[in-house]
Amino acid sequence: MNATATEKPRAVGPVALGLDFGTESVRAILIDAAGNQLGLASRDYANGQITQTLPGSDVLLPPRYALQAPGDWIASAAEATQAAIGEAGLDSATIVGIGVDFTSCTMLPTTLDGTPICELAKFRSTPLAWPKLWKHHGALEQTERMNTVARARDEAFLKRYGGTIGLEWFFPKMLETIENAPEVAAAAEVWLEAGDWFVWQLVGGPADSLTRSTCQAGYKAMWSATDGYPSSEYFAAVHPQLAEAARQRLPGVMRSPGEPAGGLTAAMAKRFGLRKNIPVSTAIIDAHSAVPGVGAADPGALVMVMGTSSCHMLNATTAAEIPGIAGVVEGGILPGMFGYETGQAAVGDAFAWLRRLLGLDSFDSLAESALRLPPGAEGVMCMDWMNGCRTPLMDGSLRGAFTGLGLEHGPEHLYLALMEASAFGLRWIVEMLRDGGAPIDRLIATGGLPHHNRAFVEVYADVLGMKIEIHPSTQGPAVGAAVLGMIAAGSEASGFSSVSEAATAMAGVPEGKQDIVLPREERTAAYDRLYTEYRKLAAILAER
Amino acid sequence: MNATATEKPRAVGPVALGLDFGTESVRAILIDAAGNQLGLASRDYANGQITQTLPGSDVLLPPRYALQAPGDWIASAAEATQAAIGEAGLDSATIVGIGVDFTSCTMLPTTLDGTPICELAKFRSTPLAWPKLWKHHGALEQTERMNTVARARDEAFLKRYGGTIGLEWFFPKMLETIENAPEVAAAAEVWLEAGDWFVWQLVGGPADSLTRSTCQAGYKAMWSATDGYPSSEYFAAVHPQLAEAARQRLPGVMRSPGEPAGGLTAAMAKRFGLRKNIPVSTAIIDAHSAVPGVGAADPGALVMVMGTSSCHMLNATTAAEIPGIAGVVEGGILPGMFGYETGQAAVGDAFAWLRRLLGLDSFDSLAESALRLPPGAEGVMCMDWMNGCRTPLMDGSLRGAFTGLGLEHGPEHLYLALMEASAFGLRWIVEMLRDGGAPIDRLIATGGLPHHNRAFVEVYADVLGMKIEIHPSTQGPAVGAAVLGMIAAGSEASGFSSVSEAATAMAGVPEGKQDIVLPREERTAAYDRLYTEYRKLAAILAER
Repeated sequence: MNATATEKPRAVGPVALGLDFGTESVRAILIDAAGNQLGLASRDYANGQITQTLPGSDVLLPPRYALQAPGDWIASAAEATQAAIGEAGLDSATIVGIGVDFTSCTMLPTTLDGTPICELAKFRSTPLAWPKLWKHHGALEQTERMNTVARARDEAFLKRYGGTIGLEWFFPKMLETIENAPEVAAAAEVWLEAGDWFVWQLVGGPADSLTRSTCQAGYKAMWSATDGYPSSEYFAAVHPQLAEAARQRLPGVMRSPGEPAGGLTAAMAKRFGLRKNIPVSTAIIDAHSAVPGVGAADPGALVMVMGTSSCHMLNATTAAEIPGIAGVVEGGILPGMFGYETGQAAVGDAFAWLRRLLGLDSFDSLAESALRLPPGAEGVMCMDWMNGCRTPLMDGSLRGAFTGLGLEHGPEHLYLALMEASAFGLRWIVEMLRDGGAPIDRLIATGGLPHHNRAFVEVYADVLGMKIEIHPSTQGPAVGAAVLGMIAAGSEASGFSSVSEAATAMAGVPEGKQDIVLPREERTAAYDRLYTEYRKLAAILAER
Repeated sequence: MNATATEKPRAVGPVALGLDFGTESVRAILIDAAGNQLGLASRDYANGQITQTLPGSDVLLPPRYALQAPGDWIASAAEATQAAIGEAGLDSATIVGIGVDFTSCTMLPTTLDGTPICELAKFRSTPLAWPKLWKHHGALEQTERMNTVARARDEAFLKRYGGTIGLEWFFPKMLETIENAPEVAAAAEVWLEAGDWFVWQLVGGPADSLTRSTCQAGYKAMWSATDGYPSSEYFAAVHPQLAEAARQRLPGVMRSPGEPAGGLTAAMAKRFGLRKNIPVSTAIIDAHSAVPGVGAADPGALVMVMGTSSCHMLNATTAAEIPGIAGVVEGGILPGMFGYETGQAAVGDAFAWLRRLLGLDSFDSLAESALRLPPGAEGVMCMDWMNGCRTPLMDGSLRGAFTGLGLEHGPEHLYLALMEASAFGLRWIVEMLRDGGAPIDRLIATGGLPHHNRAFVEVYADVLGMKIEIHPSTQGPAVGAAVLGMIAAGSEASGFSSVSEAATAMAGVPEGKQDIVLPREERTAAYDRLYTEYRKLAAILAER
């Protein structure tokens, strides 16, 4: 990250393009083999999130709907890529690979040639023909039914997901369309993740050989390398057409992020201003892309993407069925390793909520007095389940609490207690992963929050009793996509002989330049005791 | 209450004087037999609360000390009485009785002739020679020891007080002086409540026949009509000198509030501007005085004095040992009935705390949205133990909580949840009294809070499923003292043949003029369910 506004770095060695698809916009980033950021451009989607009416229509969508327009993804990505190349002043011939990360599960139905069903004239006004964004919550009923049937049948796949199929996942969204828009389901010859669809558009080819990402399939579609998707018997027990669609309408080949899906077609090369045939990596989920994006390509490094909510990811050399994790997937994050995903449902969200509740514009006025308090906030304890508990309890219906409240307490006590609750929640996750056989020897914090609120990271370090590295990048997922693009280019073109080598060189922070937060021993000792209290309170509140 | 500023009511029948001793000032009130308030005057104590330095000294007092000066009580009361008589334009010959209510346990040591030990030259600079105000918290250690010994010996008296001797009570305060100022304890020939001391000063006589109030003794000194004080064996097990003092230094005769303690001495008559020999009632605790003060002289009426904290009092025809009550005392509130005292430790205090926490100047902006919410505050539940739990758990170390908190909740949810918590707490008390055999068929709210916040009373009515009468008086204790003065005057002088008759005529609200809050049926039904949840949460939090 040596780029400055006044002097553009000359590319060192080959360059990779990362395309990072978020909820409102896409970012294109260009990184060279030494980790220099040569260019970065962002473009909003013309239609953004579609939550009120479909493009060109004034019929109101039902509540909880969140859709997107597939044309936006291609148009915005092509523009952003050209802008980034322009900014970098780069000869596009030096770009050797393309990586793609995408929100997930964002998914859509297409025809066999890849045309989105929503682009067929007869379905343009049918909401469920459009891509469903990850946060589309129309499948409440379907999710509940799929869980009930899976539990009744004691389906083994449930164990890899802490016992619960998520509302935002792939099959509930498929079933929603099957049940509520059967004409769309009948026309849908292919169902796939938006990230996989975009990669398919870049590399072309028939539906039979389209590349599906083990990351999306593993974390959002109950797929595993050993067992594949859930059984036809299970699907049939939920809905016969779901079984038919799972058998007939999911063509393609599974590949791990970093494995090439193919080469860029001539048409797309022209549209993006790139050489044709450049290798394109299999897609990865945006959050998971932060793992290579912070240079963490080795087992044992927990990457904590801290923002509105937090996603904590870990690679390990073995799979373990650990209660309460969001998923463990072979090759789910990087080739050759088992990727664990865990999460906390409300982090930045919970802070923003507390700030509003206390009538504050910011926490600045409270920070000093909160951090002067002894560990434990003088008796106030918080459970930060204001948006449910993801890992380890996987229960979105749980709600938060403050206990130990006395007339002697002020807003600063609630603020510290919330930071501690979040840190205790992470400690619970770390202990569970370790106890389950997934070692953790390194903590890397990334995302927006650690940069806004260093004090918060200090509380994390104290509670965990471990040092925490704050990664300087604010573009972790985009950088990760570029790293995967470089890997997909192969060792001859990239000059890197391993994933670990590429990630470290392109996204790691050199020794001595790391921003490290160390735990304070006497506070850690106090938190060891308080953590036991926290676990008791969690048990009590989860049971109610 | 027909008085207006422009036209003074002429007295209807005989008049009684009520003297209401608070923490900072005393109020003198004149009420006639028809309930007309003829005059009211208030005078601050010259030395107020003594918490920093003794009068005429600059030695700092230890923390948690709160003392008063006995001379202030007499001087302020005499001035206020003369001012009230002047305001009323009354011939003081029409005054037939005097009643006295006082904070409790406010207590002092005196010589046999009633001289306060702090007025002896050699003890003027000794803090523990001065009267200890009810809120003096110097006896932490002594209270703990007295509780430990009482529990170890399984003392029967504990059951009348929910199992716990209070920090602010009589014997812990005595023991504090015995241990920390033995020279004062040696000089103390009489220990007594300030209310009893004041009455003694009004009526004179030797120490042997001074009148002690069953109210103060019963609620604050573990005395009962059947068993007297705790046994010498118990006191001796705590401290030999405590046993000696309890045996030798508590002279006097027990009488119920409303029973005459004697007639006004000539000297005091002169000082107060009154006829000599007017009957003076036995003293009553200020809070308890609100019972006759709202005209509730019959069994079954729960009088809720709602302010910073709340005190709920009830008369019944039988005694029951009910777990968690603050006390049951024969003749403790009115002659011939068993008086029950229960309480909630934080009411107005808890609202003020939440208001500050939420950064609000008042709740006005929240009230409307809070009251529009369905019962249960959309999942938020509160436990209002921010200052511990008085009745029924008698545990000052308990602390409050909010549970069920989600990102969807705002300050209005916390506000409603706190009102509901307070109401659930009262319902718990009401059910406990009823289950224990003390019927309740009437609820009367008084104190400052019901007048400031009618919405709060509405939540109480909904949760209890009973109508609540809001008593209009803001001088409940003072009026109660006047009622007791009238009763002490006897039926010939007062014209009343019973306590009930006098209280109703002087302090009741005529039919048709009552301010009544009715429960709303559909909300009561919802609260029946929510109350079960509340009790579960209380059990969980009390157990932690």
